[in-house]
Amino acid sequence: MESTATRCQKWVLAKKMTGTATLSHFGLEEEDVATDLQDGEVLCEALYISVDPYMRPYAERSLSEGSMMMAEQIARVLHSKNPQFPEKSLVLANVGWRTLSRVSDMTSLRQLPVMGDLPVSHALGMLGLTGLTAYYGMTEVCKPKTGDVVVVTSAGGAVGSVAAQIAKAAGCKVIGICGSDDKCRWITEELGMDVAINYKTDNVSAKLQEEAPTGVNCLFDNVGGDLASAVICHMSLGGRAALCGSISLYSDDIHHPSQGLSIYRAIVAKQLTVQGFNVIHWFSSWDVAYRALYNLVQEGKLRSKELIYDGFDKLPEAFLKLFKGGNLGKIVVKIQD
Amino acid sequence: MESTATRCQKWVLAKKMTGTATLSHFGLEEEDVATDLQDGEVLCEALYISVDPYMRPYAERSLSEGSMMMAEQIARVLHSKNPQFPEKSLVLANVGWRTLSRVSDMTSLRQLPVMGDLPVSHALGMLGLTGLTAYYGMTEVCKPKTGDVVVVTSAGGAVGSVAAQIAKAAGCKVIGICGSDDKCRWITEELGMDVAINYKTDNVSAKLQEEAPTGVNCLFDNVGGDLASAVICHMSLGGRAALCGSISLYSDDIHHPSQGLSIYRAIVAKQLTVQGFNVIHWFSSWDVAYRALYNLVQEGKLRSKELIYDGFDKLPEAFLKLFKGGNLGKIVVKIQD
Repeated sequence: MESTATRCQKWVLAKKMTGTATLSHFGLEEEDVATDLQDGEVLCEALYISVDPYMRPYAERSLSEGSMMMAEQIARVLHSKNPQFPEKSLVLANVGWRTLSRVSDMTSLRQLPVMGDLPVSHALGMLGLTGLTAYYGMTEVCKPKTGDVVVVTSAGGAVGSVAAQIAKAAGCKVIGICGSDDKCRWITEELGMDVAINYKTDNVSAKLQEEAPTGVNCLFDNVGGDLASAVICHMSLGGRAALCGSISLYSDDIHHPSQGLSIYRAIVAKQLTVQGFNVIHWFSSWDVAYRALYNLVQEGKLRSKELIYDGFDKLPEAFLKLFKGGNLGKIVVKIQD
Repeated sequence: MESTATRCQKWVLAKKMTGTATLSHFGLEEEDVATDLQDGEVLCEALYISVDPYMRPYAERSLSEGSMMMAEQIARVLHSKNPQFPEKSLVLANVGWRTLSRVSDMTSLRQLPVMGDLPVSHALGMLGLTGLTAYYGMTEVCKPKTGDVVVVTSAGGAVGSVAAQIAKAAGCKVIGICGSDDKCRWITEELGMDVAINYKTDNVSAKLQEEAPTGVNCLFDNVGGDLASAVICHMSLGGRAALCGSISLYSDDIHHPSQGLSIYRAIVAKQLTVQGFNVIHWFSSWDVAYRALYNLVQEGKLRSKELIYDGFDKLPEAFLKLFKGGNLGKIVVKIQD
């Protein structure tokens, strides 16, 4: 039987991911995708691909040279032998940095949720894994109560900006920490955070002492290292820290951790709970979180910005931008409309 | 009205507690204790006084120069105007380093629990706050399941040795870390731990790799610093670390934490929960824990050693011994029988 095929592009690791991520870590390849679908299978084309900081440590831990980079994408179904995912419908596909995918494992596909008037790309951002990560870290790990003081690091970033707005909607005093005056302005003037700290120019400990004289109740952290340690050392009795990422440490050799401020005395003395988490843990209740986020958007309590890179060839550049800072909100790469 | 009084000795801070604790931090004083009791009051004399590592950071945080050192003691009621605590009965009194106490606040007194054939002094050790601390840290924070690999630091110490035996009784593989071959022998040959690591002579990471190739599920830690960090970096997905103390860091300036290995990447990558705790948190259910510990003793699954210093004048010396290492199990000071 003759098999039909179509050409696809994908980004692979040109060399094992260690140290600081650079363009030289990535290689563009082509391959044929067989289009003679079996029952249950779907062929889909990428519209938007997400880039996220977690990909850096994931690539180091789990991908060998020549492996394709992982990512979730918004895709359009081109051909379908699966009635759950009809032709022309939009899906969320966990298929990596590739233009075209033949999907057999349906656990990689989700229906695109209702997006209202929002650009569909937000299904990768505040209404996608980014938003869900912020939601579960904040509500299930930080567990803020009305009146609590909540600190969010990378508060101008994709996940941090959503986490902070969730805490704000819960009636907390929210202090955002970020690395530029532009971000500080955005998170206070546009997103409604109470206080912004620019960790590059402010004395973080002194500002925390001033703004949270009785201590910080909750920390949602994306950076790790001495910045997170400074906040942890300023937490109050019984405080909860949700560690979502540790972007300041991703270039380290994982077997030889960095040196940094010790947080042990603070954790013991203040009976803190410091917890790393992954949104996958709550997979079975994603719908609940999605609806909560969607409602916040409708009520005007949750908003985000997107930086959109145009073209499949821009994926590595967009990814590296995550570690350079400077952007507000979420970064996505548009492949086609 | 003429008031009667009797002379009492007490140990106070001769100077604010900072840096390494030394004999020069302590001063012996005398004072009169009025013996004309009001209704509800009790006068009691110390029999045994507990010394514990927590007293070091507590003294730094909470006691000014001239303040009496805190401690729980086993005491005998000399006079009583409180029917709950009759004359000649034994009590646990949270009254500090003093020979004689007039107690008005009954939250400082507890009945001595049933001790069976055990020396009464164990009510300060494995059947007292020491044991309860081990119990709650292990069962409520570490939450070990049968077959889990559990690491305990200071495994030859008062709290660690009890925590390790609780994990052993729960069907875990228990790895104890301590600082001498004597302790290593004691915890394996007498207390039944599966593996002992001497952190002064063994390569801790290599030993953990060998004995826990799929990772450590639970850590009960008393030391903090790089030893605890090495274990945390070797934990498995979803692992729980109960931080009971951080004895390696107590001499630090609390406002300028030590440098040490960063644990952020491990916490995030492995979704660990690292929690500081204090037994006070479970105050209302101490009876439950006491009965569980008492039953373990009766079943031969829980034992301890005591190092007993003789005489009230030995309190500072006994306390400093906690930080020098070398002893097995619990240290108490006997004031009188």
